[in-house]
Amino acid sequence: MDAAKVVSVEDCGPDGFRWLTLKKITWQDPAGRQRLWESAERTTRRGEVDGVAIIAKVVGANRAPMLPVLKQFRPPVANYCLELPAGLVDAGESVGQAAVRELLEETGYTGRVVEETAICVSDPGMSNANMRYVTLEVDADAPENQNVVQQLEDGEFIQVELVPWAGLLQHLQVEMAATGCAVDARLLSYACGLEHAQHASGGLEQPLQQAGPPAARVDGSSSCTLDSNASWGPLPFGSPIVSPLSSSALPAAATLTCSTQQQQRRWPAFAAGVAAGAAGCWLVLVGRVR
Amino acid sequence: MDAAKVVSVEDCGPDGFRWLTLKKITWQDPAGRQRLWESAERTTRRGEVDGVAIIAKVVGANRAPMLPVLKQFRPPVANYCLELPAGLVDAGESVGQAAVRELLEETGYTGRVVEETAICVSDPGMSNANMRYVTLEVDADAPENQNVVQQLEDGEFIQVELVPWAGLLQHLQVEMAATGCAVDARLLSYACGLEHAQHASGGLEQPLQQAGPPAARVDGSSSCTLDSNASWGPLPFGSPIVSPLSSSALPAAATLTCSTQQQQRRWPAFAAGVAAGAAGCWLVLVGRVR
Repeated sequence: MDAAKVVSVEDCGPDGFRWLTLKKITWQDPAGRQRLWESAERTTRRGEVDGVAIIAKVVGANRAPMLPVLKQFRPPVANYCLELPAGLVDAGESVGQAAVRELLEETGYTGRVVEETAICVSDPGMSNANMRYVTLEVDADAPENQNVVQQLEDGEFIQVELVPWAGLLQHLQVEMAATGCAVDARLLSYACGLEHAQHASGGLEQPLQQAGPPAARVDGSSSCTLDSNASWGPLPFGSPIVSPLSSSALPAAATLTCSTQQQQRRWPAFAAGVAAGAAGCWLVLVGRVR
Repeated sequence: MDAAKVVSVEDCGPDGFRWLTLKKITWQDPAGRQRLWESAERTTRRGEVDGVAIIAKVVGANRAPMLPVLKQFRPPVANYCLELPAGLVDAGESVGQAAVRELLEETGYTGRVVEETAICVSDPGMSNANMRYVTLEVDADAPENQNVVQQLEDGEFIQVELVPWAGLLQHLQVEMAATGCAVDARLLSYACGLEHAQHASGGLEQPLQQAGPPAARVDGSSSCTLDSNASWGPLPFGSPIVSPLSSSALPAAATLTCSTQQQQRRWPAFAAGVAAGAAGCWLVLVGRVR
């Protein structure tokens, strides 16, 4: 079972492409048979890794941890996309240095490296794209992290949202439903991991309560519809959670429906609060009902 | 800031490619300027989504939750790769149905759908590849999940490893270091999310103790080198953790070095146990020293 290997690689990119190319790969399967595989590759890799993705935990005294999430237009998916801060590693730069530099440029925050993962691959059935995750800690109380300003290059248009770390999955789901934006699979799976661990430890409610007012809790099994155009307050886009919807405004619900211009989404059995922002109204989910 | 959009897409794939193509995208940035972007696309999408990735939590009475992780050769990265079970969605099939089917085929386990995420994108700076995560629960005590057998197609060569859910990140890091295999970014970021949440809640040690014997704990700041060719027992490849390395065999260490044929990796300040398997020796990390 360990005999698989690449036999040859044929470069087949069309002329005129600068950043991407296609490869036709001949490989030998574990049974010894030769097969073909098609792959896309970046032409820009300088060292062993294309880039870094940055998990930047913003911490400070008397505040819940926050995570900077970026929103930018991505032509390949023809949509705005929520992502971790990320970037390519420059020549002569370590992965940690690249992470600190990219976080500063994209968000204005100065962080210190806490850990780096090994190299991982973004979509290994389709391309050779690879990266490392770097976890940074940002001291929100430090002088350099007051009134931070992005340092974007010409042609970069990046919105920064500071999201409660413990409510990351809920924030992503709500913003996708409310605005129709896309989300990067790496950010979403990190959020799933956070949420699954919090759920398993029974600790889901506690971090969310640190991030905002206690939420209404929903019990039972009937249905409830919330109008996502309703407004519960003038929170700016990207605000941390949230005006709670009082318990009395909800029936004993187990299903909530959120209608947006893009789609109708239904969530089973969440408690909910609602916040209004510049991009529309958010349905904020704050705790699964067991 | 919301004016960015795609203007036109030019198909530029070279002849003879069946599964992939390249696109040259003209898009308008938020400032109204037209720019070019290069993208790779699969030619196989039938509906709105390419595929599913499966987080399958195997649970049962009196046992720690486990997660099936796959290992298979991936020609684009010329390496074996650790991944979540995954697959393409067939025509006429829901995402949940695809997840249940793929898990059964790739691992032999029968699961039930617990949740599905919205669509997310694997590498939106490079391609339009997208997917949904589906979380399945597998009842390890159910009759259909005893003595499970994979249902692989001709040409599929997939090893299944059942990994302690609470020790996922450690397992991935150890196996990558010991065998030089790659890891999928989506699996690794899920593992990072789990670990970060467990670490934040102070619950990191407890689930690991459920999964195996209590581990030696390392305190202090000196160094220690472990020979990864050493053997501490006949555990089969993929075994849950692990023979603990007794405290007396470690100095009061804060840095552990693990040498393999592929690379030398150093971890700051972990406690460690070591297990031997068919693929070589694992250095098992079981708790960060503060």
